[in-house]
Amino acid sequence: METEGEGGVGRRRARELGLAFGEYPTGPANAITDVGDVRVGHVTLMSGEGPLRPGAGPVRTGVTIVCPHGGNLFRQKVPAAVCTINGFGHVLGFEFIRELGLLESPIALTNTLNVGLVADALVEAAIRESPEIGIRTGTVHVVVGETNDGHLNDIQGRHVRAPHVHQALAEAAGGPVAEGAVGAGTGTTCYGWKGGIGTASRQLPAEAGGFRVGVLVQTNFGRPQDLTICGVPVGRTLRPLGRAGAAAERGSVMVVLATDAPMEARQLARLANRAGAGLARTGSHHGHASGDFVIAFSTAHKIPHAPDAIVRSGPFLADEGRVMAHLFPAVADCVEEAVVNSLCSAETTVGRDGNTRLGLPVEQVAGLIRGARFTAKTPWGTQTPPGGS
Amino acid sequence: METEGEGGVGRRRARELGLAFGEYPTGPANAITDVGDVRVGHVTLMSGEGPLRPGAGPVRTGVTIVCPHGGNLFRQKVPAAVCTINGFGHVLGFEFIRELGLLESPIALTNTLNVGLVADALVEAAIRESPEIGIRTGTVHVVVGETNDGHLNDIQGRHVRAPHVHQALAEAAGGPVAEGAVGAGTGTTCYGWKGGIGTASRQLPAEAGGFRVGVLVQTNFGRPQDLTICGVPVGRTLRPLGRAGAAAERGSVMVVLATDAPMEARQLARLANRAGAGLARTGSHHGHASGDFVIAFSTAHKIPHAPDAIVRSGPFLADEGRVMAHLFPAVADCVEEAVVNSLCSAETTVGRDGNTRLGLPVEQVAGLIRGARFTAKTPWGTQTPPGGS
Amino acid sequence: METEGEGGVGRRRARELGLAFGEYPTGPANAITDVGDVRVGHVTLMSGEGPLRPGAGPVRTGVTIVCPHGGNLFRQKVPAAVCTINGFGHVLGFEFIRELGLLESPIALTNTLNVGLVADALVEAAIRESPEIGIRTGTVHVVVGETNDGHLNDIQGRHVRAPHVHQALAEAAGGPVAEGAVGAGTGTTCYGWKGGIGTASRQLPAEAGGFRVGVLVQTNFGRPQDLTICGVPVGRTLRPLGRAGAAAERGSVMVVLATDAPMEARQLARLANRAGAGLARTGSHHGHASGDFVIAFSTAHKIPHAPDAIVRSGPFLADEGRVMAHLFPAVADCVEEAVVNSLCSAETTVGRDGNTRLGLPVEQVAGLIRGARFTAKTPWGTQTPPGGS
Amino acid sequence: METEGEGGVGRRRARELGLAFGEYPTGPANAITDVGDVRVGHVTLMSGEGPLRPGAGPVRTGVTIVCPHGGNLFRQKVPAAVCTINGFGHVLGFEFIRELGLLESPIALTNTLNVGLVADALVEAAIRESPEIGIRTGTVHVVVGETNDGHLNDIQGRHVRAPHVHQALAEAAGGPVAEGAVGAGTGTTCYGWKGGIGTASRQLPAEAGGFRVGVLVQTNFGRPQDLTICGVPVGRTLRPLGRAGAAAERGSVMVVLATDAPMEARQLARLANRAGAGLARTGSHHGHASGDFVIAFSTAHKIPHAPDAIVRSGPFLADEGRVMAHLFPAVADCVEEAVVNSLCSAETTVGRDGNTRLGLPVEQVAGLIRGARFTAKTPWGTQTPPGGS
Repeated sequence: METEGEGGVGRRRARELGLAFGEYPTGPANAITDVGDVRVGHVTLMSGEGPLRPGAGPVRTGVTIVCPHGGNLFRQKVPAAVCTINGFGHVLGFEFIRELGLLESPIALTNTLNVGLVADALVEAAIRESPEIGIRTGTVHVVVGETNDGHLNDIQGRHVRAPHVHQALAEAAGGPVAEGAVGAGTGTTCYGWKGGIGTASRQLPAEAGGFRVGVLVQTNFGRPQDLTICGVPVGRTLRPLGRAGAAAERGSVMVVLATDAPMEARQLARLANRAGAGLARTGSHHGHASGDFVIAFSTAHKIPHAPDAIVRSGPFLADEGRVMAHLFPAVADCVEEAVVNSLCSAETTVGRDGNTRLGLPVEQVAGLIRGARFTAKTPWGTQTPPGGS
Repeated sequence: METEGEGGVGRRRARELGLAFGEYPTGPANAITDVGDVRVGHVTLMSGEGPLRPGAGPVRTGVTIVCPHGGNLFRQKVPAAVCTINGFGHVLGFEFIRELGLLESPIALTNTLNVGLVADALVEAAIRESPEIGIRTGTVHVVVGETNDGHLNDIQGRHVRAPHVHQALAEAAGGPVAEGAVGAGTGTTCYGWKGGIGTASRQLPAEAGGFRVGVLVQTNFGRPQDLTICGVPVGRTLRPLGRAGAAAERGSVMVVLATDAPMEARQLARLANRAGAGLARTGSHHGHASGDFVIAFSTAHKIPHAPDAIVRSGPFLADEGRVMAHLFPAVADCVEEAVVNSLCSAETTVGRDGNTRLGLPVEQVAGLIRGARFTAKTPWGTQTPPGGS
Repeated sequence: METEGEGGVGRRRARELGLAFGEYPTGPANAITDVGDVRVGHVTLMSGEGPLRPGAGPVRTGVTIVCPHGGNLFRQKVPAAVCTINGFGHVLGFEFIRELGLLESPIALTNTLNVGLVADALVEAAIRESPEIGIRTGTVHVVVGETNDGHLNDIQGRHVRAPHVHQALAEAAGGPVAEGAVGAGTGTTCYGWKGGIGTASRQLPAEAGGFRVGVLVQTNFGRPQDLTICGVPVGRTLRPLGRAGAAAERGSVMVVLATDAPMEARQLARLANRAGAGLARTGSHHGHASGDFVIAFSTAHKIPHAPDAIVRSGPFLADEGRVMAHLFPAVADCVEEAVVNSLCSAETTVGRDGNTRLGLPVEQVAGLIRGARFTAKTPWGTQTPPGGS
Repeated sequence: METEGEGGVGRRRARELGLAFGEYPTGPANAITDVGDVRVGHVTLMSGEGPLRPGAGPVRTGVTIVCPHGGNLFRQKVPAAVCTINGFGHVLGFEFIRELGLLESPIALTNTLNVGLVADALVEAAIRESPEIGIRTGTVHVVVGETNDGHLNDIQGRHVRAPHVHQALAEAAGGPVAEGAVGAGTGTTCYGWKGGIGTASRQLPAEAGGFRVGVLVQTNFGRPQDLTICGVPVGRTLRPLGRAGAAAERGSVMVVLATDAPMEARQLARLANRAGAGLARTGSHHGHASGDFVIAFSTAHKIPHAPDAIVRSGPFLADEGRVMAHLFPAVADCVEEAVVNSLCSAETTVGRDGNTRLGLPVEQVAGLIRGARFTAKTPWGTQTPPGGS
């Protein structure tokens, strides 16, 4: 069934449609900002319409910033890890994170060809905050993720410039996070529909430490026929109208993952790896040209750039199953829900050359899922998952 | 709903129940043996009952062999790659495959504590076939995968001995593959039900080269509440009766993946990586203590141990999207179906201390899925998937 | 013994001093440009002196470009691999190379904080050459390496701008390569002395295919006391005069490695890994804060962006020892010699705040090495190295 | 110069010959046993002579055990990491260490074809100590390393059996460690001479925490012409007499690395990686068929199999340069010295078919090195190495 998609009025999050994902309660905002002091900022660039004039527009892009905390990240780093599910992409900063297990910069998401300018703007911002960089101490390793929004956006124009990055950094805040066609999600496509930014969070039970995990995704991946929501193969029934569904999959997905569990880098890498299961639940097989990347960090520790002592102490999560048995499915749940949130929140967007990505018709989707008659939770589904090791 | 599970009578493969997975046709046997000259052999060890006497029984274990071809693998190696989704396991041979991109031994699957003896038996078999090993040429790098069947089996007994391995090698054959509680799957558990061996294959369309891909899995993973079949959260409704569902998840899953597409090791690693999506579709989040490993090989080339020439030639798959866009989802489909086949085929098994794993009640499952009303395929779902790069 | 170092007059390559490295003959230019159609271009930025005014100068930096061939790399890619010996650095483009095994952009080397602007300039250059990028096909994955030249250079200024990158691309040429304090090596430090760009190449014997291997390094690493040349611990005897030797090691080294042997990505990764042995011979232990990275490519194949056929053919190096037994030591020899070339060629440079890096006093070094009395080659040292596997 | 090598009388360690390696003092025994409670046990198997009768002898092999502590390792694990420099080998247990960052078994070294039986014996030993394995808790992940001693040994015979492993475990002790042609080093070859087991340790200065690092190597690698000791290219002058030097390089090297610095797995992986520099100093370029593997562990923490609490605390090394700047070169120094110790200690050994590996003529070597006239330490060489980050 071809369908028109929905416009901008009344876009909703998945839970407002009655959809549920997994067994854990969400955090207060059901957003990555529920974790520690995490902050998110978007700058959305939408201007021009009509035929593409490379370098001039139309512009359908932006930048999204995730800050692990509100302080100076170069001086107060956080433990971090990365996971490359499919390396067909153009991220910056992964080697440093792999080697040192640290994040010392806000994470910026943007479009693929804009990685250079956005990285340069992050460097500039880091120097402003920490003027010792490159003079009295080492350099800074900024982190940029990206997806290709060229179907809607004049991506050759690299329209995200330093002031946009600085604005997104300045406006980064806790609390609810704007989703859909905003920031780095302005020009993206997900399963043939308008994708964008999505987020979700989970609160673990007290016996698993009461930790939280949160996710923010930039969705730009997937074949229309594969879209699956709550197990229902929505993509087999609904497809975007006409030429809106025609273009090849050239996308990617960036997943940013935060937890307040006191995890070291190796453990965070394990956590990051579970994002793949969340993506797969929505229908992904990590397509050939889809760069699927995860960046995970913990807000439980701040690691000073120049520590006073040779050793540090503090709580570290034990390497066994009790907490992992909750954290791992919670990550998959968050990623699944964040992807669906990005779809449910993103409005129909017309971009360069009239290229159009329709907003997912959420009422039709909700109807299909209600009709599937299997979403009721059974009591025993809420039991404690068994531990491991 | 607790349910009793099904006994040994009338076990069936998923397709006999009307279930379907993805858009591609299967090979003739819907088994890994549909690929090239791949052969599979099982030896099943079931003896004793009652209380566990460590080292003596009861025995519920075995060995499964996958041979990429019927010849001498040491002298005629095949391109290969591995993917470790979760390294909580005890595989042998991965470093060599990563470095050389070659498989020079049949792959043996068994129980975790039996890896040493099975490896030794493979070495013995290789020496018999190639008496030059370690004398006039280098050594041989055998490959063993495993999962922990200790819930049903006297795993401390390491009951799989050299004669069993030699028998499985000798009986390895093409054609239909025994599934369920056989070979290395004799004592395993999957989503709380009796797991075991499963297999599936796919035939790509001619425009994607007409290649085949096949999968064999040893399933021993998953929480009961997570079991999902064809998108239907079966595990939320059905659970194994009584104490049969009680034990903690300590399992793993081994995936062996074969293709006749002429892929080099790096490409095979990409293929192997897509097995994760297939596992996730069945409900897995790659649990903490579940060692999830994939071994992939191509039957398109035989690489001599001592090549005549410095260079070799021959067809190699191009690094672009046309074939990958089919191979990747076909792998995920195969893995998903193979897991379900292992469940549908495995009979209720009572093991040590009366520990019981019930066979999945396939009719109830089929009923649940039929009731979900969304499995009909729409015409456009069979369209050519879009290319990438 | 503290020593003054040498000025700019009469800088020489290691071989002009009578030093020798390994058993293989060099290519005609003893440079990476001896391999296939490889081209190198430098733009050197030196201006201002006196106290650092962050953002204004003094400027001691630049950019060095390595092009695998003279054509359009986006449309005619080359097989490639990377090796991260120590990830404490800020390279761009590694994930794509790891996943696809391809290089589709010239490699640019520059200073750490300039990675963003240089990447953006490479994107701009790629778009000029291939206007379809991001419009009718996918995006481009440019590759940038870096080291921290902040001891001499106003690194906060990010003085390398797009015109410099375009100039280096335009001027990239075969033949002899300028070494020392040029291009990306303008402001670097190596073992406490002035480092910079170095290069070397080797020609394999006919029975090993007659292949060539070439290396270009950007040297910015090492503790003064560790410097070792031709096995002689030069650093225990000579050290830079006064405060010139005082600053902490914060450097890195980038190694670019080219071969015309027809190697796939996995094999190139093995080759790249041997660069570590070459670095170690000069005294490196891959210091904590030294990002040591290798990018390797083969010029033997050009891989079209949009191949006509699903499969390609052509010669591929066999996975055995005959060629590897020559290629591996030849790579280590090249890296060792290229590092020494960078030191012997680099002139004393005074940078920001009067910070000074002295040119290695090559005559004193040559004297020490001659005095060591063990460099004579014995006849049997030139025998064919034994094969492997 | 061909030379006869030295017999068994008066074999000595490198330091007894006046050789020195690096700037740090050794621990009391200059052995891996200087670290924490580390214990080493060897069982040496030497029997038979004359022509090879495959499966019967002559036997020139053995097993070497390294225990991180004297307790039950399954119940009290230690942080660990691995580094594969060249994966052309057949180690067991690496995936678990990579995933969990833990070592839960003694490390056994043996010959390549014996990995299976030795692994099985370790499993048996673990079950004896911890009868809950595979019954009331998970399985155990034993760790086995190997090299190919088939030039001297009837390697097809897999002569190392369970009783040998149990004996080596039982006899594992602290204090001085037997070196040379013992245990897993009984039949190995290094740079064409008789190799074997070597060990060394270093004590860091107080300002770097006063930590210790220790190394044990099983040396079975290298081309004769490449042997370098203290920077002197000994291999260019001395070579083993006659056919003793003729066989092709098919070897490998295993490095076991211990520290009492409180390092997490990621940090231990960085430490392990520096072993490559130590190997390179002795002349290695990590030859094609040489499996070069490192296993590193820390004795600073014991991680219970079933921890009481979800989180643990305790000191952890800070991620910065002060300690790393000492640990990294100390590791390279240890590895270099341990390799030389293995050569200086190993006696001439005649094996199957009269194949002979001569003991390195240590007095000639010492003379060559003394003649090189550059080993005197200058005062400033003992300065504190500069910190990083």
